[in-house]
Amino acid sequence: MAELSAESGIPVATIKYYLREGLLPPGERTSPNQARYGEGHVQRLKLVRALIEVGGLSVATVREVVRAVDDGTATHNVLGTAQRALAAPSPEVGEEDREWALGVLTELSAKHGWKFGPGHEVAPALIAAVCTIRALGHDALLERLDDYADIADQVAVVDLDTVNVQQSLDRIVEAAVVGTVLGDRMFEGLRRLAQAAESRRRYPTYRMPLSLQPPSA
Amino acid sequence: MAELSAESGIPVATIKYYLREGLLPPGERTSPNQARYGEGHVQRLKLVRALIEVGGLSVATVREVVRAVDDGTATHNVLGTAQRALAAPSPEVGEEDREWALGVLTELSAKHGWKFGPGHEVAPALIAAVCTIRALGHDALLERLDDYADIADQVAVVDLDTVNVQQSLDRIVEAAVVGTVLGDRMFEGLRRLAQAAESRRRYPTYRMPLSLQPPSA
Repeated sequence: MAELSAESGIPVATIKYYLREGLLPPGERTSPNQARYGEGHVQRLKLVRALIEVGGLSVATVREVVRAVDDGTATHNVLGTAQRALAAPSPEVGEEDREWALGVLTELSAKHGWKFGPGHEVAPALIAAVCTIRALGHDALLERLDDYADIADQVAVVDLDTVNVQQSLDRIVEAAVVGTVLGDRMFEGLRRLAQAAESRRRYPTYRMPLSLQPPSA
Repeated sequence: MAELSAESGIPVATIKYYLREGLLPPGERTSPNQARYGEGHVQRLKLVRALIEVGGLSVATVREVVRAVDDGTATHNVLGTAQRALAAPSPEVGEEDREWALGVLTELSAKHGWKFGPGHEVAPALIAAVCTIRALGHDALLERLDDYADIADQVAVVDLDTVNVQQSLDRIVEAAVVGTVLGDRMFEGLRRLAQAAESRRRYPTYRMPLSLQPPSA
């Protein structure tokens, strides 16, 4: 285990914690207090730590995700399995709000050739997001849903390109997980930089004096 | 407070918790055990709950964010203030990794007209994300950084459009916060739907048999 720690750069105490929590399969026991760990353990350790520390996932979610990665040899919907485990818990919304959101999202999905319905794994998160945005009165954001959907279509093509070039089936599933969790974090960062640049273009003084507020103000 | 609860749909216990944590300003005291709350309290309550329950932010982060919203009348960089409070804590990376990531991100930013440097508020999160993606061996994702940056530029234009149409300065800051936190969640959901659709286009059987793996496998 000391070698595994040296190889991965992860403290022994953290490795023991991951083992206890079932995030890392046990090594091959060679004596009562010795076990052998392989290259797979190093890769898995890095993945688990990345999901927790960079992806911000809970231990329980990571447990589901690594299970999905390990079940990756199942022939059906390997990418979907990993993604389902990543869906965050979402607050409940009222029945009327829910119906409205389902209508909006179903229409949007039909236009973009997406499969969507109330039972879809991302439905709770998406419904909660659009209902909350509406409840806060930021309808301007919702009016551009179709533009966001167009951009999501472009992102998805690049996402799938990067998953596609991986070699083996378990690597494909792992790439989908990394792309989903870390890719989201990376894209959020790029979006912040681009927003700041766009903000400077529109408000060149880096301030927003009253005179630059929209005419409706 | 009972009326505030009825108006906002948020339980009295939750409102008391938000007051104690400084997420909501106290009402105007009218008697020893009565206080008056206004429309601003209702809107603030909805914002706080949205950031915690849908945005997944911690109480400490929300406290910083509402402070940024309340300081919104300061003339400089109102959008940046709110965004800085939203930057998630990121794990440290090694010195060599950090230098490499800074080089990659600086070059990318120069190409896209973004301001970026080691002191930028999103630098820790972005550096952690690209270093972790590299450490996990998913270089395919990094090779497409420029494509992701192109798409981030498009998203930012729509983002700023939706912020721009808000009426008052505090609403502009609030819209930036909502757009940043809830807009990210919403876009993640759309991206999942688009990925699934793209995945079905490439792997029409909804399975990924060995014969469909890339030729390099």
